[in-house]
Amino acid sequence: MSDVKLERVKGTVDYLPPEQMLREEIFQKLTQIANKYGFLPMDTPILEKWETLAGKSGGGSEIKKETYNFKDQGGRQIGMRFDLTVPSARVLAMNPKMPMPFKRYQYGKIYRYQEIKPGRNREFYQFDMDTYGTESIVADAECIAMGIEAFKLFGFKEFNIRVNNRKLLKGLMGYAGVDSKKIKTALVAIDKLDKIGIPGVQKELENRGINKNSINKISKIIKIQGTDDVLNQVEELVPGNEGIKELRELIKYLNAMKIRSGYSIDLSLVRGLEYYTGTIFEISAKGLNVSFAGGGRYDKMIENFIGTKIPAVGISYGIEPIYQVLVKKRGLKKTRTQVYIVPINEKVMKKSLGLASELRALGVNTEIDLKNRNLSKNIEYANKKGIKKLIIVGERDVKEKKVTIKNIVTGKERRIEFKMTIINKAIKN
Amino acid sequence: MSDVKLERVKGTVDYLPPEQMLREEIFQKLTQIANKYGFLPMDTPILEKWETLAGKSGGGSEIKKETYNFKDQGGRQIGMRFDLTVPSARVLAMNPKMPMPFKRYQYGKIYRYQEIKPGRNREFYQFDMDTYGTESIVADAECIAMGIEAFKLFGFKEFNIRVNNRKLLKGLMGYAGVDSKKIKTALVAIDKLDKIGIPGVQKELENRGINKNSINKISKIIKIQGTDDVLNQVEELVPGNEGIKELRELIKYLNAMKIRSGYSIDLSLVRGLEYYTGTIFEISAKGLNVSFAGGGRYDKMIENFIGTKIPAVGISYGIEPIYQVLVKKRGLKKTRTQVYIVPINEKVMKKSLGLASELRALGVNTEIDLKNRNLSKNIEYANKKGIKKLIIVGERDVKEKKVTIKNIVTGKERRIEFKMTIINKAIKN
Repeated sequence: MSDVKLERVKGTVDYLPPEQMLREEIFQKLTQIANKYGFLPMDTPILEKWETLAGKSGGGSEIKKETYNFKDQGGRQIGMRFDLTVPSARVLAMNPKMPMPFKRYQYGKIYRYQEIKPGRNREFYQFDMDTYGTESIVADAECIAMGIEAFKLFGFKEFNIRVNNRKLLKGLMGYAGVDSKKIKTALVAIDKLDKIGIPGVQKELENRGINKNSINKISKIIKIQGTDDVLNQVEELVPGNEGIKELRELIKYLNAMKIRSGYSIDLSLVRGLEYYTGTIFEISAKGLNVSFAGGGRYDKMIENFIGTKIPAVGISYGIEPIYQVLVKKRGLKKTRTQVYIVPINEKVMKKSLGLASELRALGVNTEIDLKNRNLSKNIEYANKKGIKKLIIVGERDVKEKKVTIKNIVTGKERRIEFKMTIINKAIKN
Repeated sequence: MSDVKLERVKGTVDYLPPEQMLREEIFQKLTQIANKYGFLPMDTPILEKWETLAGKSGGGSEIKKETYNFKDQGGRQIGMRFDLTVPSARVLAMNPKMPMPFKRYQYGKIYRYQEIKPGRNREFYQFDMDTYGTESIVADAECIAMGIEAFKLFGFKEFNIRVNNRKLLKGLMGYAGVDSKKIKTALVAIDKLDKIGIPGVQKELENRGINKNSINKISKIIKIQGTDDVLNQVEELVPGNEGIKELRELIKYLNAMKIRSGYSIDLSLVRGLEYYTGTIFEISAKGLNVSFAGGGRYDKMIENFIGTKIPAVGISYGIEPIYQVLVKKRGLKKTRTQVYIVPINEKVMKKSLGLASELRALGVNTEIDLKNRNLSKNIEYANKKGIKKLIIVGERDVKEKKVTIKNIVTGKERRIEFKMTIINKAIKN
């Protein structure tokens, strides 16, 4: 017997079958959407050289502190990936002849040594879809379209897509009179609007040394929301701004893709990551303060990292919030098993196993009693497991070429002919 | 620009889209089979507490040397899982009320710091299907049946399934006069038969202190192969042996599941892992010395580990050998994209994006030019990417409600009406 108390590492999670079935479904649906838009799968190691992750163009100092790293048995300094972007940049560097654009999706576990909160762990999944090698805003529109399609496919009706552009934000900060050296810090303050409201942002800005006049202008700007009309309003403030041109183009392409509602331009949307250069967007649940997915254009990040100019735009899905909301919304299914066969004794085992094989060959997910239990114990088990249909095979049944099919939810049962077509139909009804 | 040479950690692999598409297919097919037999997915962390992995009932000293481990930022000793069995045992320990049998599949990356050879890495995938909580040999038969089904689904015609039983092996060692303390070491020698042949095994046995007389008997035993007849032969040597009874039962159940050929009883099959207690089996490619999958019954392992008796039987698929053989057998597909849309200029972009949306809504995997290239550059790109069908949208086309569809493999093209039914049909033909 073990002398160790068995428990998980802090910040890691087990997903038992009901939970993992739903998670598999999320991955499958996202894969299906990615494929429809011409994105193909890629897989990279969880282990990366520490130099790759810690390089100045990798994660930056914040991420470095949070990155699991260790010396392996051979003395190499190894890190565990903290996102899927840096590994992809490495792959692009190692495959310079890749035809462009390169549209890839990738999902897998990533690692951050961070404070644990509900929905925030140290080992968790991310699902990314990125287009590398083109500056075309059509690629940006595709990312947003995929996001919308995903949440429709998940059955979410209530979600918001907020869109903004870093070039426009920069221009607006200039208009507000924010010193170019202080734009970054001002944006950090604006990014907190959701959490602290306008008065909070105003205070943050003040603390960060932004002057009264600028704060007043910023306060007005971040209240502006809408679609085309917003752009007309801000055009007066920053005429000829490249970000406005890009947002107009983005809206034009979204409309061409039959997406005419469900998104708004939100001048307060910043998105934390420094590396964005143009379009930025975030998809969240209406009413809930939960971000499901987000992304944007980062045209310089790969160049900074590998020395070759490769523009990029992508969307990253937060698997945990999507999963949490789906669990609340529809609960968890307990099984994929469609029928459970109960051989009443060893004498009918042969017939029962043959039946199981034939059902499986027809594509019916079939379980058979593996503990030689009596009927009531078997019903109890099937109930716990969420299996609705039972086929009971008795000695008399075998002689008379019949079986009994029982719906354990309604309690109804009937004896039917031992013919595959009849049995199959009875399972599905 | 980066001053770091970007490269992978030794023993890890990137899978670019052509490779990863095939790997996804392998996971999907195995999932489908597992579901058909009533197995459901589970996911556990890659990170485990070092005490869990290193506990005396965990991996044993060999595995311990090979396990990546490190102290995290909080001073905890963490290990990276070296298989999916120990984490599952931990889950069983932490969920003592799980209804039994518990049939789960799990796949994911595992880690071993080991010598690297072709097909052997330090980060690699495993796909396990195990039934916990029953001693019924039907569960053993299901594992073998799932193995057979997998290789049929992969299109492998030439594979061998070798079956044996640890209780029988133990009995036969007794018959051969091997001292009970030396059975383990004798089995290690026999396990090498594939690699070193009978003379090699004889020498090994001698080196391990097995006497001449025993070696002679063992040499005869390990030559025996077949099905029912084998059991009759060995029954004379070890009458009443439990392993024979179990193998007979296994064959009976396999037959009932319509599996009457493709497997043989091989008395030389040992399988390295000490924890097996009954049925053992291995599936390999005929002619090639490659093991695709293997498994068996390990009724005591979980008890040793967590203190509760939970019998278990499972099959573990080696994703790397299956993948390698499939690559050789059918090569790699380059894309899942069915059609590539070429808008001839910006004026037809709206129409082209609308077409892309409608095709995607019909479930057609659709890519659209994202680099505003001319036709010949687009054909070159589609060719490199393995996309066969192009739809060209010109200004005249839009006016006349037509598009041109081009098969870039045959070079044939034709102008068709801009109607979704007609376009969809032309893509699929």
